[in-house]
Amino acid sequence: MPYFDAASAAPLHPVAREALLASLDEGWADPARLYREGRRARLLLDAAREAAAEAVGCRPDELVFTPSGTHAVHSGVSGVLAARRRAGRRLVHSAVEHSSVLHAAEVHEAAGGTRAEVAVNGAGRVAAGDVAAALTGDTALVAVQSANHEVGTEQPVEEVAGLCQEAGVPLLVDAAQSLPWGRVPGAWSVLAASAHKWGGPPGVGLLVVRKGTRFAPQGPADERESGRSAGFENLPAIVAAAASLRALRGPETSAEAARLRTLVDRIRTRVPELVPDVEVVGDPVHRLPHLVTFSCLYVDGETLLGELDRAGFSVSSGSSCTSSTLIPSHVLRAMGVLSEGNVRVSLPYGTAEAEVERFLEVLPGLVRSVRERLGVPAAPAEAPEAAAPQGAPAGTAAEPADLVVDALGRRCPIPVIELAKVIGRVPVGGTVTVLSDDEAARQDIPAWCTMREQEYVGERAAERGAAYVVRRRV
Amino acid sequence: MPYFDAASAAPLHPVAREALLASLDEGWADPARLYREGRRARLLLDAAREAAAEAVGCRPDELVFTPSGTHAVHSGVSGVLAARRRAGRRLVHSAVEHSSVLHAAEVHEAAGGTRAEVAVNGAGRVAAGDVAAALTGDTALVAVQSANHEVGTEQPVEEVAGLCQEAGVPLLVDAAQSLPWGRVPGAWSVLAASAHKWGGPPGVGLLVVRKGTRFAPQGPADERESGRSAGFENLPAIVAAAASLRALRGPETSAEAARLRTLVDRIRTRVPELVPDVEVVGDPVHRLPHLVTFSCLYVDGETLLGELDRAGFSVSSGSSCTSSTLIPSHVLRAMGVLSEGNVRVSLPYGTAEAEVERFLEVLPGLVRSVRERLGVPAAPAEAPEAAAPQGAPAGTAAEPADLVVDALGRRCPIPVIELAKVIGRVPVGGTVTVLSDDEAARQDIPAWCTMREQEYVGERAAERGAAYVVRRRV
Repeated sequence: MPYFDAASAAPLHPVAREALLASLDEGWADPARLYREGRRARLLLDAAREAAAEAVGCRPDELVFTPSGTHAVHSGVSGVLAARRRAGRRLVHSAVEHSSVLHAAEVHEAAGGTRAEVAVNGAGRVAAGDVAAALTGDTALVAVQSANHEVGTEQPVEEVAGLCQEAGVPLLVDAAQSLPWGRVPGAWSVLAASAHKWGGPPGVGLLVVRKGTRFAPQGPADERESGRSAGFENLPAIVAAAASLRALRGPETSAEAARLRTLVDRIRTRVPELVPDVEVVGDPVHRLPHLVTFSCLYVDGETLLGELDRAGFSVSSGSSCTSSTLIPSHVLRAMGVLSEGNVRVSLPYGTAEAEVERFLEVLPGLVRSVRERLGVPAAPAEAPEAAAPQGAPAGTAAEPADLVVDALGRRCPIPVIELAKVIGRVPVGGTVTVLSDDEAARQDIPAWCTMREQEYVGERAAERGAAYVVRRRV
Repeated sequence: MPYFDAASAAPLHPVAREALLASLDEGWADPARLYREGRRARLLLDAAREAAAEAVGCRPDELVFTPSGTHAVHSGVSGVLAARRRAGRRLVHSAVEHSSVLHAAEVHEAAGGTRAEVAVNGAGRVAAGDVAAALTGDTALVAVQSANHEVGTEQPVEEVAGLCQEAGVPLLVDAAQSLPWGRVPGAWSVLAASAHKWGGPPGVGLLVVRKGTRFAPQGPADERESGRSAGFENLPAIVAAAASLRALRGPETSAEAARLRTLVDRIRTRVPELVPDVEVVGDPVHRLPHLVTFSCLYVDGETLLGELDRAGFSVSSGSSCTSSTLIPSHVLRAMGVLSEGNVRVSLPYGTAEAEVERFLEVLPGLVRSVRERLGVPAAPAEAPEAAAPQGAPAGTAAEPADLVVDALGRRCPIPVIELAKVIGRVPVGGTVTVLSDDEAARQDIPAWCTMREQEYVGERAAERGAAYVVRRRV
């Protein structure tokens, strides 16, 4: 059963499993104690720290283990911001950071700090120059991920790090997605990562603070992990995490990366050929080897994920319907791309080519059946005979130049489907106004216009939700 | 090799080991995902929560898993204090709470809150009435442990909880030490515990917030664990923690508690018979079944622990020399008891009686040899012929009524040994003044006076350290 969601959590690496089992017997005691069980635990902890530091490319005394990548990010952000309070209270971060960075930024803002978001291009990549331009005199910290968790786009961290260094501002790199594939290059100051992304067990994150970086841990501390991560060390898991990361630094990893890159290239090429109305998103060149994301027009992401699951494929999605808040992914929003019918495929180490081929076989039929159930005509834009949408207050034959589609109370992808159904009923130059209270419409109606070469006029306030105006161009 | 430090970390329970292994294969995926691996992980997480809640005696939706007991305490304290900010900013806690509570209290104080410490008696127990008396109108939270981690004394939490409830103030119970032995009774509001204290793996704590308790999680949050504990769930460890806690709720546990209580009683009785100048500390009745602490006069705790380790016994200590800060345990200080030569024995589940007997066999010889190496006379107080301490500026035969002992720069237990050596050289009614810059002297000189029925006059400021004045009474 192919599991294609390595970017959420990778299955346990065999080396991690072995190390975990061995250290359950050797590493359960308190490494701060002086008796033999404690000394044994301390040796394991020290060795794990050295192995992890070597894999990261830092000194062992720069690296502490945290309970998760999320904790590493939260502690890293708050520790630098507190230490550099006199320099300023401004946090600069890319618009596509992981939610852990955004949550830390929100807390900073709530406490009186300021933040600036650096925009990304349509492929989800920041320009190093844009980061540099955001470095005002009161900037305390910059946070830029090494690679994006949703679309796989790699960021120019080495270049950003150089510019930050010139400006004397520390750079925190969330390396959760890229660390399995190699070290993060450049003069970054702080790095955060998460073991369960590389096949280590959950319960282990890495926080690296390079020497010379001002750092003041926040919140209650204790004497563990240099005062940077409180609580009894999760030792067997730490040992397993370090062992599996070290294993990934062998020569096989670059061969495996190349192999997965080929499989991902095949998905990037074949999906748009096999499935109509698909947008592959993310940078085609600067990208993680194992991750590809695409969005399917007129498709409900949750239903498609369910169909894929029934067909044996585990993938994830940034569509609003798959989120508890019914808000589409902030990454897709920042990129200005379609969010409906979104599918992220992230291949675990060792994925068989046949699994990818099988995915390409079943996907077109599943998308087709989801669209059929949603009542999407085969070629929606060219269907002037399409029935007026249920509850539409306007759109009669007498006034074809300006149609209003009432999609209030209806969720993604219905507003876009209703738009597509009626666009052919207004003449070129005429407009369709979609009334919608679904958050995804704000993102997907403009994205649809770009894909369909129609003009997105803009959004107007409405009594309920918003009114999105589209002018027919083709 | 007998490991007698279960209060630091218990070896992995066989049930925990089995559950951990099983869930490594079933529970590595993200429980928030909707595909089969995610659903499997979610089922495991839900079942673990139900099992843990049943063992604690709460509803499953009142319990979240945290990365450690320390995190549970930190989050519990800050969450209640923030939610009850309007009620007041006063935190009341016993003087013998775990350092995690004290660290959280320090952070609260640094942020402008206030705190009040409730004193304990010589056995380390708070009086419920003293807690009630501390409940001013602006008290936001009370924190009282269920049992002390260093001396095993049980606190009257049920009574305290009742009084807090009457006053409308929530009570947080740090149940880390007692939860392995049973539920915490009473109307507490918040409970924290740590899995590696009951034979679960490290990396798992419990935070229980009873319905109706105002609670506002602090710091960056995410959608996991009801927003009360951020970061990817440490699932295999959570499953193992819950399974082992449930296993401890079987009928064998009370039988085992009774058996260990007998072994501890034997240590409590025999150690003072076998070793001269020993003080057994902690409540003899209201106590954990498996834990006993005693202090040996004229003994260096670190050396004694090293000797015990060489003899195969792993124990811990609250002596200053075993702490990185060279400050004696705050618990022993709050109790006003001797801190030098301190030994904590905490028996793991299943400890063999023969191991305890063997401990009683080797201990007297080890203490004797440590004392011999420190130059302690067989009966120090009755040794008027003892040599004047090295570097002592006073204490000549010409002025025997008031001796000054210079122990500056010398660590515990030397200042007390020097005092004991010369007390016989002043007449009854005369004084010995000990100059010391060792923090332990502040605690151990008065404690020695109590044990020796001498009068502790008090402490005077000195150019370096302090001058401790003792009047000879016997």
